[in-house]
Amino acid sequence: MDVIKKRIAELRRKMTEWGWDAAVTVGEDPHNSEYTPKRWCQREFISGFTGSAGVVVVTAGHAGLWTDSRYWIQAARELEGSGIELHKMVSVEDKDWIKWIAQNVPAGGKVGIDGLCMSMNEAIQLGSAIEAKGAKVVSRPDYLEELWPDRPLLPQGAVWLHDDKYAGRSRTEKLSWLRGELETRGCRYMFLNCLDQIAWLLNIRSGDVEYCPFVISFALVGPDSVELFAEISKFGNDVLAELKKACINVHPYGEVGQYIGSLKADGRIMIDSGSLNYETGKAIAGTFGQENTVSGESPVELAKSVKNDVEIEGFRKAYIQDGIVQTRFFKWLEEKMAAGDKVTESDAADKLHELRAAMPDFLDESFETISAYGKNAALPHYTTVRGQDAVLEPHGLYLNDSGAHYKYGTTDITRTVPLGPLTELEREDYTLDMMAMIDLAMAIFPEGTPGCRIDAIARRPLWQSKRNFGHGTGHGVGNVLSVHEGPQTIRQNLKDQPMLPGMITSDEPGIYREGYHGIRHENMILCVPAGENGFGRWLAFETLTKTYLDTSALIVPMMEKKQIEWLNTFNADVFDTLRQELTDDEVAWLAVKTAAVRVQ
Amino acid sequence: MDVIKKRIAELRRKMTEWGWDAAVTVGEDPHNSEYTPKRWCQREFISGFTGSAGVVVVTAGHAGLWTDSRYWIQAARELEGSGIELHKMVSVEDKDWIKWIAQNVPAGGKVGIDGLCMSMNEAIQLGSAIEAKGAKVVSRPDYLEELWPDRPLLPQGAVWLHDDKYAGRSRTEKLSWLRGELETRGCRYMFLNCLDQIAWLLNIRSGDVEYCPFVISFALVGPDSVELFAEISKFGNDVLAELKKACINVHPYGEVGQYIGSLKADGRIMIDSGSLNYETGKAIAGTFGQENTVSGESPVELAKSVKNDVEIEGFRKAYIQDGIVQTRFFKWLEEKMAAGDKVTESDAADKLHELRAAMPDFLDESFETISAYGKNAALPHYTTVRGQDAVLEPHGLYLNDSGAHYKYGTTDITRTVPLGPLTELEREDYTLDMMAMIDLAMAIFPEGTPGCRIDAIARRPLWQSKRNFGHGTGHGVGNVLSVHEGPQTIRQNLKDQPMLPGMITSDEPGIYREGYHGIRHENMILCVPAGENGFGRWLAFETLTKTYLDTSALIVPMMEKKQIEWLNTFNADVFDTLRQELTDDEVAWLAVKTAAVRVQ
Repeated sequence: MDVIKKRIAELRRKMTEWGWDAAVTVGEDPHNSEYTPKRWCQREFISGFTGSAGVVVVTAGHAGLWTDSRYWIQAARELEGSGIELHKMVSVEDKDWIKWIAQNVPAGGKVGIDGLCMSMNEAIQLGSAIEAKGAKVVSRPDYLEELWPDRPLLPQGAVWLHDDKYAGRSRTEKLSWLRGELETRGCRYMFLNCLDQIAWLLNIRSGDVEYCPFVISFALVGPDSVELFAEISKFGNDVLAELKKACINVHPYGEVGQYIGSLKADGRIMIDSGSLNYETGKAIAGTFGQENTVSGESPVELAKSVKNDVEIEGFRKAYIQDGIVQTRFFKWLEEKMAAGDKVTESDAADKLHELRAAMPDFLDESFETISAYGKNAALPHYTTVRGQDAVLEPHGLYLNDSGAHYKYGTTDITRTVPLGPLTELEREDYTLDMMAMIDLAMAIFPEGTPGCRIDAIARRPLWQSKRNFGHGTGHGVGNVLSVHEGPQTIRQNLKDQPMLPGMITSDEPGIYREGYHGIRHENMILCVPAGENGFGRWLAFETLTKTYLDTSALIVPMMEKKQIEWLNTFNADVFDTLRQELTDDEVAWLAVKTAAVRVQ
Repeated sequence: MDVIKKRIAELRRKMTEWGWDAAVTVGEDPHNSEYTPKRWCQREFISGFTGSAGVVVVTAGHAGLWTDSRYWIQAARELEGSGIELHKMVSVEDKDWIKWIAQNVPAGGKVGIDGLCMSMNEAIQLGSAIEAKGAKVVSRPDYLEELWPDRPLLPQGAVWLHDDKYAGRSRTEKLSWLRGELETRGCRYMFLNCLDQIAWLLNIRSGDVEYCPFVISFALVGPDSVELFAEISKFGNDVLAELKKACINVHPYGEVGQYIGSLKADGRIMIDSGSLNYETGKAIAGTFGQENTVSGESPVELAKSVKNDVEIEGFRKAYIQDGIVQTRFFKWLEEKMAAGDKVTESDAADKLHELRAAMPDFLDESFETISAYGKNAALPHYTTVRGQDAVLEPHGLYLNDSGAHYKYGTTDITRTVPLGPLTELEREDYTLDMMAMIDLAMAIFPEGTPGCRIDAIARRPLWQSKRNFGHGTGHGVGNVLSVHEGPQTIRQNLKDQPMLPGMITSDEPGIYREGYHGIRHENMILCVPAGENGFGRWLAFETLTKTYLDTSALIVPMMEKKQIEWLNTFNADVFDTLRQELTDDEVAWLAVKTAAVRVQ
């Protein structure tokens, strides 16, 4: 840990030079992204802590990391010997680190931040908290760079165009729609900083962010043109020429602040102050004036969640591709286990990757595969690390949660399968969780219903047996974008976003028993209209996933007749859809797996 | 309508005298009550409109009533010929009348209100809306009184004490608890203006408000005493003496403003600015200063919703009393119908009242009985008016929604029963609605779950058949207080109030088909702990209602096995509980009604 101690000491020297009383590192990137590119893993650089959430505060006499319960064990281990103290946060929303700074900052002091890597809202909140002491926030973009000679550069993945035949709407159409939306809000401009929104709007992609094919960039949408700030070297001439046709001009990534500063503002601009970084927000307010800066949820967020017919067709195709892959994978696994071969969790993940990568139109995995045997599966976000991973044994349950980007759609699927004899409790949990997943898949609900109101429909079969799970039931999935996207969500937290036809959301209840086993069944469900009658308009779900559900682990008499019927129809459809794509051997194997379960 | 025209003309003369450009009448009482005593039916006085929601705005050139869709038909009829224009509000929250005033008030104008009968929040909202024009709000308490020589006086119902043996906690205990709560909020005082909160806290009741045994009053709770503002003449000496023991001093109702004005403030005061009227709020802010006035939800609101063991026992007893009444009522009804006697909806309501009034410990009905036959039941809030009411016929469904205050608890129950042959659709709706009510009654859910998250558990059986209802599924019930109380609610609107053990809530899904029939099954459910395991702590419901559910109208094969089992257990328990209280004849009749349904 000497390297961390050295970095902290060096930071303290710099702080003296800059006149700072505290230095804050929140560890986000300038785009408020879910996955942070290496360049912006500043929290890890300064503390050695590799978790995905936390804040480091350094003063002359103290260095601390604030993080929530998911990371307490990991942080304690990683911070050992670093001199950095772990501050346990019970609620992330409480922002205890701001309270700590407010208590400990000297009167009239200076609290330093990297304003590129902190959201406007958070910086303002910090500023308000220390105002009473006459202290203030000072922003120094990239301030850790001076102690970080080998800081990773901006990612250099080549930019490619997401074809209209997969996007369903051209960038010109999308821009014209957005300009209309801005007009209804009285705005001429919109500044976009969320990477998935920019990628969706301009139909561009690259390999900049692991698992998420975004282009690291900012975009200023104006009435006649779009100014896109990104590493120009990543754009081929053909790509630049295509973008030019839609009046999209590419500028160096680092010049966004200057460009905004030099702009002659003529009208109002829309921003999302919840995700916009402080430096850029300041530049925008400087040019446009506070009174002409309209803050609100970007209309792109909702628009990209509602898939058009072309995208829906693409997703259907992607789930057939994935169904083929998964059939081959679970057949391989069953045969390896039957042969008594040694298979580790990593071996299984590698095999699945090999099968996926061999599929036409495969681009990348959409997130890191969770390959978890037995008690490892009880951690919903288990990471499989070769060498530390378990060997699969011919009993108990194996959970695999994985996904891929194909040219035309993104998948996310979890299957839990028995590797041999199960305990009664494993079978009970397996069955209840299947009932939960099926109940949501079968749900019909009135137009206008938000996801938080149907979450209980999935949980009810678990609740009635006093079982539950801590994560959400469903998240949106982007189209060759992030595998987790909003604004819809099917979960416990109250959020007033109605489910809309065209939204594609996961249906993934789970049951986890620490030290024993973990079960999750995950399908992808498309929200579809389900008619209108005297009671109003109705919505339902169509399941897109085409991978069989293992029935051998079920305790069938626990299930309701309608659930069994749904399951048999689902498996029969999987078989019918995939049979022409599979070898005779595979078809024979899948026929057994998808054979109907008898209704009691 | 000449009387209304005359009143408007007279108001306009007064407005000239006072220098007002607009006069607003919101029609609330000074306590933000659900039922408005006659004295404060000012909206009805000035407009003739008898609905329970709406705002009247009068200017020199215009008189208008703003109301929501529930009242459009009624308002159009009642306003005819009055010269008052109906403004249809799509959403009550939008407060279109404020927008209208903001548009139409002249620059620097004056908008007059009765600040006693408008909430502080609303008056402030109005003020902000007209500020840009330099216009302002002027309050003139009781301004309509000058045109209203025969304005009803304050209600004169005698005050009685709600005995500790029914309340479970004495007023001294409750006051000491409240003072502790105030201390944790840094307050020395609390001003209470909601009538049910005052009645609960001080264990006092009277017959001031129809169906709600409140005492019209304000209460200022201080560290050592309580100043209660109410009509002193209604208090007997024995009551005054008892109150005195808890340091509760009674002052004339009208002196609340002066008293607050003359107070020497020493500490902070808590208010509920959402329900507090503008005049009183102004007086409090004047004495205590804005900085010492803490606004928030009154702790009494939550405390009174969580019933203690004594109250729960009282409710159990009340539901047995009501079960006896309802058995007798439905037996009487069946026999009258069989005999071919003419029974109108009003006759039925009267008979039910007669049976209830004969019960020991009966105090009053808890709301106006809804006695609705056939298509009349399709209006969820149908009012039975003698002379305009329907005659019950020996076919179709009859709905009865009624309730009573007994000394120890308040009831609310709806039963829908067949009077003869039913259509297939009536039977289907009857069965689905029963399934919905049973599913909620059987629900188990994790501690911390708000009602809006379990609402879908009741609606699911209806939704799956594309049926629904527009009202909430469940409301809290006060203990000899309002039959509708918060803060918990089981309904579609998102609200983050967890269900807590001890809360008593209705379970009343419905299905309404305009022009055909209406069905509602309503039981009262008590939230109870249901154990703890590795997944957390669990809650469930115990059904308190002891009135049989008619099974003859059911299509049993539509139901799930567990629903049928619940129903049989429920009916068997009703029979066992009531049999010793009934005559042999009644027992024989109830035995048939509660006979088990065969599980298919």
